[in-house]
Amino acid sequence: MNANSLQQKFMTVRSNKAFELFVVAVILFSAVVIGVKTYDIPPAMLTFVSWLDVGITIIFLAELIIRFIGEENKKRFFHNGWNVFDTIIVVASLIPIEESEMALIGRLLRIFRVLRMVSIIPELRVLLNSLLKALPQLGYVMLLMFIIFYIYAAIGATLFATINPELWGDISISLLTLFRVMTFEDWTDVMYETMAVYPLSWTFYLSFIFLTAFAFLNMVIGIVVSVIEQEHRKEDEEAHAAEPTITDLQNEIQELKQLILQQNQQADK
Amino acid sequence: MNANSLQQKFMTVRSNKAFELFVVAVILFSAVVIGVKTYDIPPAMLTFVSWLDVGITIIFLAELIIRFIGEENKKRFFHNGWNVFDTIIVVASLIPIEESEMALIGRLLRIFRVLRMVSIIPELRVLLNSLLKALPQLGYVMLLMFIIFYIYAAIGATLFATINPELWGDISISLLTLFRVMTFEDWTDVMYETMAVYPLSWTFYLSFIFLTAFAFLNMVIGIVVSVIEQEHRKEDEEAHAAEPTITDLQNEIQELKQLILQQNQQADK
Amino acid sequence: MNANSLQQKFMTVRSNKAFELFVVAVILFSAVVIGVKTYDIPPAMLTFVSWLDVGITIIFLAELIIRFIGEENKKRFFHNGWNVFDTIIVVASLIPIEESEMALIGRLLRIFRVLRMVSIIPELRVLLNSLLKALPQLGYVMLLMFIIFYIYAAIGATLFATINPELWGDISISLLTLFRVMTFEDWTDVMYETMAVYPLSWTFYLSFIFLTAFAFLNMVIGIVVSVIEQEHRKEDEEAHAAEPTITDLQNEIQELKQLILQQNQQADK
Amino acid sequence: MNANSLQQKFMTVRSNKAFELFVVAVILFSAVVIGVKTYDIPPAMLTFVSWLDVGITIIFLAELIIRFIGEENKKRFFHNGWNVFDTIIVVASLIPIEESEMALIGRLLRIFRVLRMVSIIPELRVLLNSLLKALPQLGYVMLLMFIIFYIYAAIGATLFATINPELWGDISISLLTLFRVMTFEDWTDVMYETMAVYPLSWTFYLSFIFLTAFAFLNMVIGIVVSVIEQEHRKEDEEAHAAEPTITDLQNEIQELKQLILQQNQQADK
Repeated sequence: MNANSLQQKFMTVRSNKAFELFVVAVILFSAVVIGVKTYDIPPAMLTFVSWLDVGITIIFLAELIIRFIGEENKKRFFHNGWNVFDTIIVVASLIPIEESEMALIGRLLRIFRVLRMVSIIPELRVLLNSLLKALPQLGYVMLLMFIIFYIYAAIGATLFATINPELWGDISISLLTLFRVMTFEDWTDVMYETMAVYPLSWTFYLSFIFLTAFAFLNMVIGIVVSVIEQEHRKEDEEAHAAEPTITDLQNEIQELKQLILQQNQQADK
Repeated sequence: MNANSLQQKFMTVRSNKAFELFVVAVILFSAVVIGVKTYDIPPAMLTFVSWLDVGITIIFLAELIIRFIGEENKKRFFHNGWNVFDTIIVVASLIPIEESEMALIGRLLRIFRVLRMVSIIPELRVLLNSLLKALPQLGYVMLLMFIIFYIYAAIGATLFATINPELWGDISISLLTLFRVMTFEDWTDVMYETMAVYPLSWTFYLSFIFLTAFAFLNMVIGIVVSVIEQEHRKEDEEAHAAEPTITDLQNEIQELKQLILQQNQQADK
Repeated sequence: MNANSLQQKFMTVRSNKAFELFVVAVILFSAVVIGVKTYDIPPAMLTFVSWLDVGITIIFLAELIIRFIGEENKKRFFHNGWNVFDTIIVVASLIPIEESEMALIGRLLRIFRVLRMVSIIPELRVLLNSLLKALPQLGYVMLLMFIIFYIYAAIGATLFATINPELWGDISISLLTLFRVMTFEDWTDVMYETMAVYPLSWTFYLSFIFLTAFAFLNMVIGIVVSVIEQEHRKEDEEAHAAEPTITDLQNEIQELKQLILQQNQQADK
Repeated sequence: MNANSLQQKFMTVRSNKAFELFVVAVILFSAVVIGVKTYDIPPAMLTFVSWLDVGITIIFLAELIIRFIGEENKKRFFHNGWNVFDTIIVVASLIPIEESEMALIGRLLRIFRVLRMVSIIPELRVLLNSLLKALPQLGYVMLLMFIIFYIYAAIGATLFATINPELWGDISISLLTLFRVMTFEDWTDVMYETMAVYPLSWTFYLSFIFLTAFAFLNMVIGIVVSVIEQEHRKEDEEAHAAEPTITDLQNEIQELKQLILQQNQQADK
């Protein structure tokens, strides 16, 4: 009974607007602390900042425990990806790390606390979900893109490896170089270098640029069209729910016809 | 009575097309004067130009006064953001500035007179308003973008600060460097430098580019779709106003049915 | 009568498919000649090429005369912009030019013969016309863009002229530098240079990039939406021509109602 | 009879899901082998890899024979472009090549085996087909683009050849340089170089950038609109198939009217 009342108390705390705002404020403050730590700060302040860090960790831990106890179904708590993410971030912050190597990892982990912003603000969560939902649509275009990249990287590594091993040494370096070419970053320098040996190698770069640009363009257009179609379908369904269809009208007109025909037959009798 | 007749007179001046064209011409002329001042011009001409400047300021002041007196409701005059902007620009030009430091600020302030073009031409005002109205839609995507930038900048400042303090020294410099990477400006130079120390740091850059490009793409698509939807809704409403709905038709058909049924009942009697 | 029959003869020649193909072939050939002249070619061949040039000019002149005589209404001939363009190109080629200075202009003029491709192929003419028709839509956005550019250029020339006169010397050079920044071409080099003097000058560049990118985005979206709307309207009109409107239906149903009411009144009598 | 039963057996093998997955796995494995060969690997491993290569070639040959025998209509087999592609890739791999020159070509040919991924996975085949189908739409815009490029390249080669022969030496090099300018890759370096001789040459670059950007934009918008229109038409047709048109309704209402008029006439009699 005691545990249950505690749960109910925590549930009200959890859905309390002020509590949510307080957590957002702490996350924002922890983001500022992360930013401050990247500046050259005097040792005294550094000590103060690490105490702040401990304080933030404790608040996050308390908040997580409140949310966990406030959850009716304990199992469902970890079905939510964001809760799992929060737990990992908080628990990882608890592990004491002193060595220089591990300290770096600890600092990096603390940076991901800023992502808690997304888990706390519902609008951002919706936005991220809709972004992630758009990804599978891109699946096959991505695969096709990767095949194009892989073939060009293999050709590049085979032909140009001796010209500049730093750009074309093996297939993974070539993939990176091709990505660079796709972003148009100093791509002519790369091209002029290989054109000195293979004068026709401009065909390699131009065909690659056209292929990837064309595939990319089609991907974008594909997404635009599919999103617009989805909206249309949703709208049409709303319209159908509110208004009778033309088929409904036809049925009613046919009923009318039956009635008039009956009249005529009666009149004939 | 006298003040009132003056107000009416100024109201007609204010809505006079020739008056508007004259003000546009003066603004254009002041823009040319601003441009001319950036060239190396002989001192004699410089004196002439500063006299022109004084003349333009006086005309602008006169115009503002005419518009103010011509306004029926004096309070409402300052509710319009453009009027406030005009007043600030004109009043600031009146402050006499002689010192070299302040003279620079004075010159910069005069440049904003060109913006009066937007406050005077209604089509530009409408355009700018519609641009500004599109901004809040982007709110959460912008916030998400900033979170992505902040996390990557914090990671960059933590890991790469010792490699090149000019690019990754602290979190604000890192944010600028990341913006540079997003515009693809010499991003490979930045990457190759950190890859010399952390060979896997290409994952940092590529994941950042993909994330921001993807978020940007979704933002653009989101705006396109929402604008198209708005247009559709407007069109649909126009169509509804002009034409009866299918529901209207259904009601009329049902009335008909009632009439025929009444006939039948009468005939049966 | 003689002139008239000649006109009719030339009209048939003009609309002859083989004649059109022949002219396209000559234009293509003249494009190749223009290309060949940019290579280092032996003097003997150069002489040959200039004879070819003369031949092409004669054929173009003949074609123009045939088209002119074949035109029923001589006045309307020059109302067509393409005909005027063709005439200028052909007549300009006729002027004998020997001096080195003028020879260059002559060569440049001959290059524009390739544009005759557009005037001859109807599909290209339609395409170019639709491109030009899209331009006025952009009018006010272009003006707004120019105002943004002008203000930033004036600020840049005022503040940065002493830092690097080659980039910010006066307002016209500043406009070019800003266009360079908008294309992201080595924009960070420009920025780092001014940040050494004014550490906050990154706000100048970032605000400029955001403003122009945002205005550009809105321009693109505006065009997309207006083109889609146009297509919709066209489609709707086609649909309306083929199918009766709901208003038509309503009228017919109301007629029916009148008939039935008349029946009822007669029955009552 | 024996050959026929063999064909039927192979037909079932061909449409076997496990067989398809096995072939995909072999293609993936061959892609990995191609990648591995671009690294510096010890000679012993190199021998092993070439044996793997032979094995893959044999499996591909076997698969092709199975698919060929499993095909009912032998002639139709080669009407499918993908089958022709597969056959060429497999047959070319069979030719023994030992000399260094030919060995390179052999290695390049093996790279194209990765493209078999597209021929085997139906979704990728559909995607590529839809990409190819979008190409002819671009035909005339591409031609217009090429005309713009050609004219600018001819002007560039005529005016700037003496300034920097490596960029503007002849028309083909100029075309490459212009493509570079279009991708904004160090285009200001190219411009500043020619502006030193012809101070107004910035008009050449800016007009070129505006023209190509504008043509490109129109191309993209054209594709977006045409794809959306296609989808609409498809949807409309589906809707028409499912629902009666307004014309159908009108016909039925007119039938009703006839019936009621007949009634009235009978009543009058």
